[in-house]
Amino acid sequence: MPNPNHSAHTIAVTEENRIRRVSERGTHDRETIYSIIDANYIAHVGFVVDGNPVVIPMAHWRMDDDLYLHSANKGRFAEACKGAKVCVSIASLDGLVLARSAFHHSMNYRSVVIHGVASEVNAEPEKMACLKGFMDWLFPGRWEELRPVRQNELRSTVVLRVPLESVSAKAREGDPADEPDDLGWPAWAGVIPFATVRGAPLPDPTMAADTPVPPYLFEGR
Amino acid sequence: MPNPNHSAHTIAVTEENRIRRVSERGTHDRETIYSIIDANYIAHVGFVVDGNPVVIPMAHWRMDDDLYLHSANKGRFAEACKGAKVCVSIASLDGLVLARSAFHHSMNYRSVVIHGVASEVNAEPEKMACLKGFMDWLFPGRWEELRPVRQNELRSTVVLRVPLESVSAKAREGDPADEPDDLGWPAWAGVIPFATVRGAPLPDPTMAADTPVPPYLFEGR
Repeated sequence: MPNPNHSAHTIAVTEENRIRRVSERGTHDRETIYSIIDANYIAHVGFVVDGNPVVIPMAHWRMDDDLYLHSANKGRFAEACKGAKVCVSIASLDGLVLARSAFHHSMNYRSVVIHGVASEVNAEPEKMACLKGFMDWLFPGRWEELRPVRQNELRSTVVLRVPLESVSAKAREGDPADEPDDLGWPAWAGVIPFATVRGAPLPDPTMAADTPVPPYLFEGR
Repeated sequence: MPNPNHSAHTIAVTEENRIRRVSERGTHDRETIYSIIDANYIAHVGFVVDGNPVVIPMAHWRMDDDLYLHSANKGRFAEACKGAKVCVSIASLDGLVLARSAFHHSMNYRSVVIHGVASEVNAEPEKMACLKGFMDWLFPGRWEELRPVRQNELRSTVVLRVPLESVSAKAREGDPADEPDDLGWPAWAGVIPFATVRGAPLPDPTMAADTPVPPYLFEGR
């Protein structure tokens, strides 16, 4: 029963040798939290519309101690979230954990949950700086290579800032944590690792063949 | 500015040859929706607590036309979600889309958003069937190999069902969709593909070395 929310099930084993190999814990350590935020490109943003929960996947980026989101102006997301409480969840799957009992199946993962009020970045110079910050976070050096942003593009984009104040991380790693009495049960036990991988860049067919290939295509988080 | 929520920006190009290569659209096609649900192991589940949005990452599974979630009994999730409206978001990143302007940057992705009321599966035979369904969804044939579920394990687990009635998918694929006037701009343009990959299974060091390696470790979604 893999479930990132299921921590009580996976830390129950007290054998010393298993404690060393299984770790599932929450943390408020800022370095850990930021590394998880920066390792992902999609956040799931929750907000409340007429009392009902809404969650949508969105791009996010981080600048110092703030998380940023953006959207088309006049969209449902922008209207619902300006000045409103949001909850942002960001998670990576690292493995499926197969135990000898269904109950102790789990997942290896790293996740961050952020609670905060999303405030709109209104002043145009600051909004432009945020969008540059987004590109710098993705591909350092690319902003300067691009066709400059036009005023109508800037005006049709909403940028929202969520301070990284109420934020926590949770992660599990390591082997299954079976009941000691189950260790001899003859089922395969272990971890199937998962990872998100970046492939070779695919050039746009309309691009001139002699366009330089920037190093940031192969680097990054 | 990659953003799965940013559809208006990426379908603006009308050149015939680009229309063919760029696709971003919503759908209510059930086969597409189920393929996205089944291709992922983590869902982000949103609910409302005291008027505030909460989103947490969880394992999910599908049986026919219902989505299932599970949790430890007496946890915050179980208490908040039994009989309550939830919104479940499931998304895969397929690529970062680099256009000649910041504005037309985007993501290739596949996502599903589900709205519904989560109802608890109370009857123990049905709850057991759901948990078997979870294992069958993950690893067909494994349920029968495991140490059988104990009554206390069944009782300490909450299973919630969300009918797949109010559900939609949204996806983008293909090359960047630049403004026609920007196609000659000398910046690299194209897609950096991303994929989630399954690695070689890592056996638990405490497992007997002659334990058979089941084929489901290498198969699946």
